[in-house]
Amino acid sequence: MSKKFHFKGRILMLGYGSVGRCTLPLIDRHFDMPLGHMAIVEADDRSDLLKRYIARGLKYETTPIVRENMASLLSKYLGKGDLLINLSVEVSSIELMNWCQAHGVLYIDTCIEPWAGYYDNASIPTHERSNYFLRYSAIENARKWPKGSPSALLTHGANPGLISHFIKQALLDIAKLRGLSASKPKSKAEWARLMMKTGTKVVHVAEHDTQISSDPKKPGEFVNTWSVPGFVGEGLQPSELGWGTHEKRLPHDGNEHPIGPRCAIYLSQPGCVTQVRSWTPIGGPLIGFLITHGEAISTSDYFTVWEEGRAIFRPTCHYAYHCCNDAVLSVRELQMNGFHMQKQHRILGPEITQGIDELGALLMGDFGAYWYGSQLSIEEARELLGPEFNATSIQVAAPVLAGAMYLIEHPNLGLLEPEDIDHDYVLDVCRPYLGPVVGVHSDWTPLKERGRLFEEAHLDWDDPWQFRNFRVS
Amino acid sequence: MSKKFHFKGRILMLGYGSVGRCTLPLIDRHFDMPLGHMAIVEADDRSDLLKRYIARGLKYETTPIVRENMASLLSKYLGKGDLLINLSVEVSSIELMNWCQAHGVLYIDTCIEPWAGYYDNASIPTHERSNYFLRYSAIENARKWPKGSPSALLTHGANPGLISHFIKQALLDIAKLRGLSASKPKSKAEWARLMMKTGTKVVHVAEHDTQISSDPKKPGEFVNTWSVPGFVGEGLQPSELGWGTHEKRLPHDGNEHPIGPRCAIYLSQPGCVTQVRSWTPIGGPLIGFLITHGEAISTSDYFTVWEEGRAIFRPTCHYAYHCCNDAVLSVRELQMNGFHMQKQHRILGPEITQGIDELGALLMGDFGAYWYGSQLSIEEARELLGPEFNATSIQVAAPVLAGAMYLIEHPNLGLLEPEDIDHDYVLDVCRPYLGPVVGVHSDWTPLKERGRLFEEAHLDWDDPWQFRNFRVS
Ligand SMILES: NC(=O)c1ccc[n+]([C@@H]2O[C@H](COP(=O)([O-])OP(=O)(O)OC[C@H]3O[C@@H](n4cnc5c(N)ncnc54)[C@H](O)[C@@H]3O)[C@@H](O)[C@H]2O)c1
Ligand SMILES: NC(=O)c1ccc[n+]([C@@H]2O[C@H](COP(=O)([O-])OP(=O)(O)OC[C@H]3O[C@@H](n4cnc5c(N)ncnc54)[C@H](O)[C@@H]3O)[C@@H](O)[C@H]2O)c1
Repeated sequence: MSKKFHFKGRILMLGYGSVGRCTLPLIDRHFDMPLGHMAIVEADDRSDLLKRYIARGLKYETTPIVRENMASLLSKYLGKGDLLINLSVEVSSIELMNWCQAHGVLYIDTCIEPWAGYYDNASIPTHERSNYFLRYSAIENARKWPKGSPSALLTHGANPGLISHFIKQALLDIAKLRGLSASKPKSKAEWARLMMKTGTKVVHVAEHDTQISSDPKKPGEFVNTWSVPGFVGEGLQPSELGWGTHEKRLPHDGNEHPIGPRCAIYLSQPGCVTQVRSWTPIGGPLIGFLITHGEAISTSDYFTVWEEGRAIFRPTCHYAYHCCNDAVLSVRELQMNGFHMQKQHRILGPEITQGIDELGALLMGDFGAYWYGSQLSIEEARELLGPEFNATSIQVAAPVLAGAMYLIEHPNLGLLEPEDIDHDYVLDVCRPYLGPVVGVHSDWTPLKERGRLFEEAHLDWDDPWQFRNFRVS
Repeated sequence: MSKKFHFKGRILMLGYGSVGRCTLPLIDRHFDMPLGHMAIVEADDRSDLLKRYIARGLKYETTPIVRENMASLLSKYLGKGDLLINLSVEVSSIELMNWCQAHGVLYIDTCIEPWAGYYDNASIPTHERSNYFLRYSAIENARKWPKGSPSALLTHGANPGLISHFIKQALLDIAKLRGLSASKPKSKAEWARLMMKTGTKVVHVAEHDTQISSDPKKPGEFVNTWSVPGFVGEGLQPSELGWGTHEKRLPHDGNEHPIGPRCAIYLSQPGCVTQVRSWTPIGGPLIGFLITHGEAISTSDYFTVWEEGRAIFRPTCHYAYHCCNDAVLSVRELQMNGFHMQKQHRILGPEITQGIDELGALLMGDFGAYWYGSQLSIEEARELLGPEFNATSIQVAAPVLAGAMYLIEHPNLGLLEPEDIDHDYVLDVCRPYLGPVVGVHSDWTPLKERGRLFEEAHLDWDDPWQFRNFRVS
């Protein structure tokens, strides 16, 4: 990445939160483009943090975007050939995309966001509060776009985003390990066949954030390593998972969807109280939250093998998120308080004393378990970008950078999901920002050490990869 | 407590852990007795912490007590009229008591401990790993003692211990509130009748320890505000609760006992993964661990109303323990690691930055909810005893002091449980060490705020006080 990436358009970045703050220096570092061509709009006034960029020409505005002011605001900063990087919360991704389509503007985000007041609105039917439904709506919405319309890349952060590329790399590694032909598949159908051939049954986004801090979470405070409203929002959505064809039965509280590809199910409880077992190489066995995430839906859809209209293979696919310890405690407090979000928010930065955000894809099946991902430490994160950054936000910002480059180089592909773009391209751009990127084979299964002190009557000892064996709560 | 308490016998204290360290200065402060009459024996060498006491004559010895050396060791320090204060872990309470009976020695402990390697020994049947069974064994064992034998007070720390006296005081307050005759009952039968008359259905030991520290728990470390092996030991026992006569059905994993008074049940899982909702006045709604505790068994037995051999009234009674945040995380890690106790242990002391150990009895029923207990803050704890102490250990040590005094004044009562001794006596001795001691009426129920975002199909909306409404995991 010695040569700078040339871009002659303008960039508008919405949101300058934990991810935005990390993305700006990456763009500044890698793009050959005057800062005067770049603008940031966000809801909170953080101009103090941006002084040195504003001095170099960056445009900055504090305006909460709502349905009514969206179009006029976007037109101020964007026109044909430009790029919108959406790193805000509570601004509708679909409406932003539609505006971009109408105005020839490239689009990227890291989450399909609805307008404010959606996730915790009990008057919206549960299944419509799902990511499955939000993704379905985004895809349906894009059906009317003409072929060759401006590229719009959905959910290209760390996870969703980067993780889909980790999954593909893991799959190639496993294929090699198993002595299968490991040439890189060229289509969705080929990728799905390869996964089936490897004997993969389950794919976890297995993340263990071990960053700890010297300033403990206080009562009434939600502490996290990235967006608090972002995390709470997805935590209050129904727990969702791609539902594999090897699963023997639906969970007692599992629900199928009435529409769309039916690759995923949702549980009748929020993700922030749904816990599952998983594993990462450094952290070891973990218990994490099964928070809904875009990739649980998109990858289970992508890796489905269809034969005569029947899905003959699909992996179970979901998130298993051991957030940082202070966030674990914050989630617990949220549950104690009847899911009313705490008023005080804090994103950990300089107070972090040690830790790693170990984030990867854990593929499990006939071959055992194989984890492929990033083990970025707080020390390395600080070396890369400075003392105010943490490992988590860099893992999100690097794929935003890669996605933006990809869009600029491939401007006419219409709607894109992470699975639709070349994983080597993205990994090559991101690698310098990910710390050690490793693939590790393990004999871990969710049945390891189970039933030692107490019998666990509900376990399926015949097939370790049944969802019931992973589920804790 | 201006006049010192005179004792002419000797005292042997077993164990000088978090509780012992707190008990010694209290005895030194309140007892009129030369320190040369006192000895401490423990397994770990902590003589460095004891220098100023040893200089004043305290005898100190580091010897792990095992079955084989117990008798010879006790005879070195104890004889007729003396007192054994057992604050150790992993030394059999029953065998210590039997030795004391044989040698005319008074006895007090804060937990019925078995020899090492009991709680996590899967070859012992689950029901025998219960506190119900340990208490049953202790009571059966004492049947052979003659009338008027030396007093032996079981489980007289904070909880079990002090909490039984809080329950009685709460009951008197509720009776008054409800306009019932509130004269102090004189027998077990009268106390039980009074509880029935008040409409009490459920009694929680509702504890919320909000002490937090500037030195966060590290991976592989178990951090707590009192004994780590003590907490892990009881956390790995089956979850146990006194089982109320108002309960409509046994939990799906609930088990009745084959022997004894059958006042309690146990669940087929350890307490450290069993979570329940409860409430304290300052902390508000909480989710805590349903760890087995002596008082869940003894109070449900004590407050049972019998008619013609049938239990016509009994409260559901159990612990709901929101341990300090670092311990919550430590328990989570313990579960992730298949219940193998972490190697590193730390008891929080000077690194605590703020917090309260809010510990009380929460009685619930026809009158709503009423909490009575102690709200000792870290600041007050430090003022009382010094900067190295925390709130938790003082709450345990004060009732040990009170229990010791009671034994000396009532030396011939044989086996005693906390319910058997006068609650005013104990509260009067303890009050100076408990911070604010308050009684608070509340409209909290476990159904408050439930089912807001997601339906919870298993709830019993007709009776808030059913165990299923409290249970989280
Ligand atoms: N895919 C991933 O790996 C990943 C990881 C982290 C975050 N995210 C997503 O990225 C987004 C940003 O996360 P973050 O951690 O930076 O969030 P943050 O809470 O730190 O910042 C949110 C930003 O959005 C702005 N904002 C809020 N409402 C707005 C409005 N109405 N108009 C304009 N701006 C508004 C805020 O001012 C702030 O700058 C979220 O959607 C989050 O879910 C994705
Ligand atoms: N009832 C309550 O409220 C309450 C509260 C806290 C603790 N406790 C109980 O009090 C006891 C002590 O708790 P703690 O927090 O002080 O424990 P701790 O772990 O801090 O200390 C334990 C002590 O026991 C000693 N010990 C261990 N094995 C021994 C052996 N074989 N022989 C002699 N001594 C031995 C250790 O050397 C140490 O001094 C435990 O049984 C615990 O469950 C009761």
